[in-house]
Amino acid sequence: MIVALKPDTADEKQNQLVDWLKGMGLGVHISKGEYQTVLGLIGDTGKVDMELIASLDIVESVSRVTETFKCCNRKFHPDDTVITVGDAKIGGGSFCLIAGPCSVETEEQIVAVAKAVKQSGANMLRGGAFKPRTSPYDFQGLKATGIELLKIARQETGLPIVTEIMSASDLELFADVDVLQVGARNMQNFDLLRELGHTDKPILLKRGLANTLKELLMSAEYIMASGNENVILCERGIRTYSDYLRNTLDLSAVPMLHELSHLPVIVDPSHATGIARMVPPMALAAVAAGADGLIVEVHNDPLHALCDGAQSLKPEEYDSLVRKINAVREAIK
Amino acid sequence: MIVALKPDTADEKQNQLVDWLKGMGLGVHISKGEYQTVLGLIGDTGKVDMELIASLDIVESVSRVTETFKCCNRKFHPDDTVITVGDAKIGGGSFCLIAGPCSVETEEQIVAVAKAVKQSGANMLRGGAFKPRTSPYDFQGLKATGIELLKIARQETGLPIVTEIMSASDLELFADVDVLQVGARNMQNFDLLRELGHTDKPILLKRGLANTLKELLMSAEYIMASGNENVILCERGIRTYSDYLRNTLDLSAVPMLHELSHLPVIVDPSHATGIARMVPPMALAAVAAGADGLIVEVHNDPLHALCDGAQSLKPEEYDSLVRKINAVREAIK
Amino acid sequence: MIVALKPDTADEKQNQLVDWLKGMGLGVHISKGEYQTVLGLIGDTGKVDMELIASLDIVESVSRVTETFKCCNRKFHPDDTVITVGDAKIGGGSFCLIAGPCSVETEEQIVAVAKAVKQSGANMLRGGAFKPRTSPYDFQGLKATGIELLKIARQETGLPIVTEIMSASDLELFADVDVLQVGARNMQNFDLLRELGHTDKPILLKRGLANTLKELLMSAEYIMASGNENVILCERGIRTYSDYLRNTLDLSAVPMLHELSHLPVIVDPSHATGIARMVPPMALAAVAAGADGLIVEVHNDPLHALCDGAQSLKPEEYDSLVRKINAVREAIK
Amino acid sequence: MIVALKPDTADEKQNQLVDWLKGMGLGVHISKGEYQTVLGLIGDTGKVDMELIASLDIVESVSRVTETFKCCNRKFHPDDTVITVGDAKIGGGSFCLIAGPCSVETEEQIVAVAKAVKQSGANMLRGGAFKPRTSPYDFQGLKATGIELLKIARQETGLPIVTEIMSASDLELFADVDVLQVGARNMQNFDLLRELGHTDKPILLKRGLANTLKELLMSAEYIMASGNENVILCERGIRTYSDYLRNTLDLSAVPMLHELSHLPVIVDPSHATGIARMVPPMALAAVAAGADGLIVEVHNDPLHALCDGAQSLKPEEYDSLVRKINAVREAIK
Repeated sequence: MIVALKPDTADEKQNQLVDWLKGMGLGVHISKGEYQTVLGLIGDTGKVDMELIASLDIVESVSRVTETFKCCNRKFHPDDTVITVGDAKIGGGSFCLIAGPCSVETEEQIVAVAKAVKQSGANMLRGGAFKPRTSPYDFQGLKATGIELLKIARQETGLPIVTEIMSASDLELFADVDVLQVGARNMQNFDLLRELGHTDKPILLKRGLANTLKELLMSAEYIMASGNENVILCERGIRTYSDYLRNTLDLSAVPMLHELSHLPVIVDPSHATGIARMVPPMALAAVAAGADGLIVEVHNDPLHALCDGAQSLKPEEYDSLVRKINAVREAIK
Repeated sequence: MIVALKPDTADEKQNQLVDWLKGMGLGVHISKGEYQTVLGLIGDTGKVDMELIASLDIVESVSRVTETFKCCNRKFHPDDTVITVGDAKIGGGSFCLIAGPCSVETEEQIVAVAKAVKQSGANMLRGGAFKPRTSPYDFQGLKATGIELLKIARQETGLPIVTEIMSASDLELFADVDVLQVGARNMQNFDLLRELGHTDKPILLKRGLANTLKELLMSAEYIMASGNENVILCERGIRTYSDYLRNTLDLSAVPMLHELSHLPVIVDPSHATGIARMVPPMALAAVAAGADGLIVEVHNDPLHALCDGAQSLKPEEYDSLVRKINAVREAIK
Repeated sequence: MIVALKPDTADEKQNQLVDWLKGMGLGVHISKGEYQTVLGLIGDTGKVDMELIASLDIVESVSRVTETFKCCNRKFHPDDTVITVGDAKIGGGSFCLIAGPCSVETEEQIVAVAKAVKQSGANMLRGGAFKPRTSPYDFQGLKATGIELLKIARQETGLPIVTEIMSASDLELFADVDVLQVGARNMQNFDLLRELGHTDKPILLKRGLANTLKELLMSAEYIMASGNENVILCERGIRTYSDYLRNTLDLSAVPMLHELSHLPVIVDPSHATGIARMVPPMALAAVAAGADGLIVEVHNDPLHALCDGAQSLKPEEYDSLVRKINAVREAIK
Repeated sequence: MIVALKPDTADEKQNQLVDWLKGMGLGVHISKGEYQTVLGLIGDTGKVDMELIASLDIVESVSRVTETFKCCNRKFHPDDTVITVGDAKIGGGSFCLIAGPCSVETEEQIVAVAKAVKQSGANMLRGGAFKPRTSPYDFQGLKATGIELLKIARQETGLPIVTEIMSASDLELFADVDVLQVGARNMQNFDLLRELGHTDKPILLKRGLANTLKELLMSAEYIMASGNENVILCERGIRTYSDYLRNTLDLSAVPMLHELSHLPVIVDPSHATGIARMVPPMALAAVAAGADGLIVEVHNDPLHALCDGAQSLKPEEYDSLVRKINAVREAIK
């Protein structure tokens, strides 16, 4: 960590700071500049509170030069992590297609969608059983029943299932689920992350509403530091002042996360845009940006189909999207 | 809910939509305009998915004209909610001073700070026992021990205690805590909110990192709809592109929340700014904006005091701040 | 425009509002709902101040159902606008490659880069002569000399030239420039836009630092309403809380702008990311998202090349990028 | 400037960088750490492109330890700048009340408002003659005529006048205006700033829609570096994801700007909130935060008064606000 002191800092104040830092078990490398003095902190600076030091009245700036994330850091693990779920692989050059309805509604619905997306080439089935809703008055999902229906769809198609878990107390219900999803609103629910770290299931970790890439990686670190290294990062759009789209899909997160971490990175263009007809172009853009997979909402609900609505694609739309996805993958090879 | 259709919408498509809406048990009031047709939806529109309708290809815009929050809505409850905790009152014209260290560290520390802030006029003691940290490698708090130390400080001073709960599974440990705080990162941890709604304890609900006022109110609604009406809203700064401060304290949230809701609204200037010397001016500004209280970090840690640092005020600084707070309260009466 | 009144609005207040609106020459269509009354405003609502009406104490919500932009609106002009510059075409299915250095430095530099990018397939040459810099102490560009050097490069290669204009008072100097660029910081410099509307030159209009798509279109509207319909929209990244990249490239702007407007939309991945190695993936993503072109920084400065730095690509990097761009274009056809 | 190199950087690469930096006339202080090497750059680092260096593949982080703003920097000018306009003083402990209508409409209107606000204690009259509007179809102001009407109001009341200038080419028209306002959308219209730096008139510089404090100070620097030191900074709300208010008033900018700079800082609560009834609490909060003045919209337009609307206060509302402002000023002394 680099601590630049203000010009004309009294030696006494500087010494107090240096002693205090050494008292924390750090090595302090002092370099006197023409304009000011800079301290280089050596040792385990992970436990140093940057903001505290930055706020000291003799300090001009503080910068951490060593990342605080370790398990997910590519520096310490150069090779891509590849996560295997049934026949599907995520990361390391393979591409994973996850698709399914926002919510599991009925056996007919989930099985029909599962069969359709499998035929189009999907590798996994997604479907919400526990739904995080902004309003307590909105549909909260079929819960346990929804998970049972997902299992039936898996039996019918062989597709591994991905569904969201909102509380560690529900873990038992998810015992037979293949991939556990942590939603954007729980990205910093640290107790949940820690508990998931004690399982051996792949965790699909969605980026929070307005979280930085570093915060996303630190949340992955919570899971990995607890013993579970099977984390899949997911960019799903961030909150800005967007006027025509629900969120702003931050595709630059894909190459940057690949540079910072060895974990696979997938993209959710459905929640990011909130508009079905915006999903195909953004899905293709995600592929071109180097994503390791896509999680896309697909359903066959006639009521929606009736008006060509919502953020979900119809099976035939998904089918033609997959064909284009494969073409773009070829193109960027 | 008002649904404006695109010009030249085919009657057949319009009728399909109207039938579908009626199928959801809504009354549909059709008004044909010179330029386009507008549908007024009547009945329980709370369960209607605005985004789904907005995404229909025949729909130009949708606007919800009735708030979806009910329990915390001032329209249905004109009088201020006043929450009583021991001798302290929050809301309804009274002013509540909550103060204490960021983390509970030792009995000496928490008791000393408690005595100091009480002498300055504080009504409640705050102190973190369970700490949500971005990094799994940072200090996570004394947990159960921290709560015990808070109780000792309460015994010594009579000050009710406020501390953060991160998981419903910890509820037992908080049985004897006076006010449970939900941190910014858990504002949309809906399972936690629902569980807290089943208790009868006052809940101090902090606004999330980048959440809107409506989302804050909907989270309060989760607690209230589950049966607990004792919710205190807290503005603690939102995430923007701020360069010199940690967050951007949104003080306009105070009068706006008062207009929208009958719940008390307090402000946390310490986390919002992250810089001790910025706390007094923002605390006074919060009072002038009409806040019902302030939660401020105060500690007597010599190491920090040594360099006049961090976001915590020293007891003497807090003491002089309280005097100014009272003066400003007088001024705006 | 739809104006929803609050429940229990006094008839007298409602009538005052209706009379006032009629006084503005608007037709007012009143529909009494079970819960509240909604006014539908008919006629030229473009001149109505939505915020004023929304702020009236009897009004609950206001929504504009007709777009305020006309010239650039696809509704009134379904076919893509195609802009021709020399041999280059922008929009309508063709793809335009604009490349060159951030700043024009010397004749050798600009001519060398021009020849290199032309060989790679670029259709136009970019280069900054007038540089908007956050600091008055930073290099402000070669100004008039820079434009002369661009003309020499054009002579040598036949590539049309694109360069930024910061003030209408410089227009004469740009008389012989092919495309005038309006930078992000001037997107709402309305006097400049109006003046550019009086020229017949193609205008490359960059989206502002934190502007919405509607604001971008309204700025295009300033140029077009003044008589110049040759506007090229450019997404160049918006300001968020990004931690590892300079801006957040909003690629969803591409398909959405294409839906809203008939104007061509290009993307600048260089300024958006600020990091050369992030440019290729984001450039390819922009192509996959349906962009009509790319404006990319390329230079051959050995000092930069030395350390493989900055946001500019080296000619050989640009050359391999263009090959991939063509492959992706094929793939999404 | 502090440049931290990545661990295991090849000596050859490091030497190339050091030579290049020295070639720029900088002194380079190398300190080898246990984990990595850190370079301290000494000399005029103002002209060094931080982003370029940060993007070099051997560089881990760069931090500038010396501010790039000089003229407005409190470090080099500890005393508050006090700007005198007629009988009014801004900065240095005095408080300046600027009030008036958003737009100048008629002589009757502007004179009536001027008389009213003067009676309430206002020190200056504001009124828009040239209006920056998002839409080219909205009212653009009375322009030259508006300025003439302001002069009449000044003659009638003795109040100095403040009005917005949008283009340097209009400067002659503003020859007799007391304070020139630069609007948020022109905060980085560097040519305009430079031209205003050649005048001797006080400049009221509004913070841009989404600009950082540093960018605001760098824009002030443009004016000051050109020779005009009479700059008044103005916080007017920034763009976030606010749902019930137009912008988010960033009051923490007031104490922070005071710490960074010697220039006076005023606040515009009218544009920040866009809602008249939110103006008084935010105005009082601004005073409590230490603002040097307030610029508030006041008009007597019956049409607005009719419905108690818009963001403008009625004269009687402004009068009672001023009384409270004075009380809060007393309280924080």
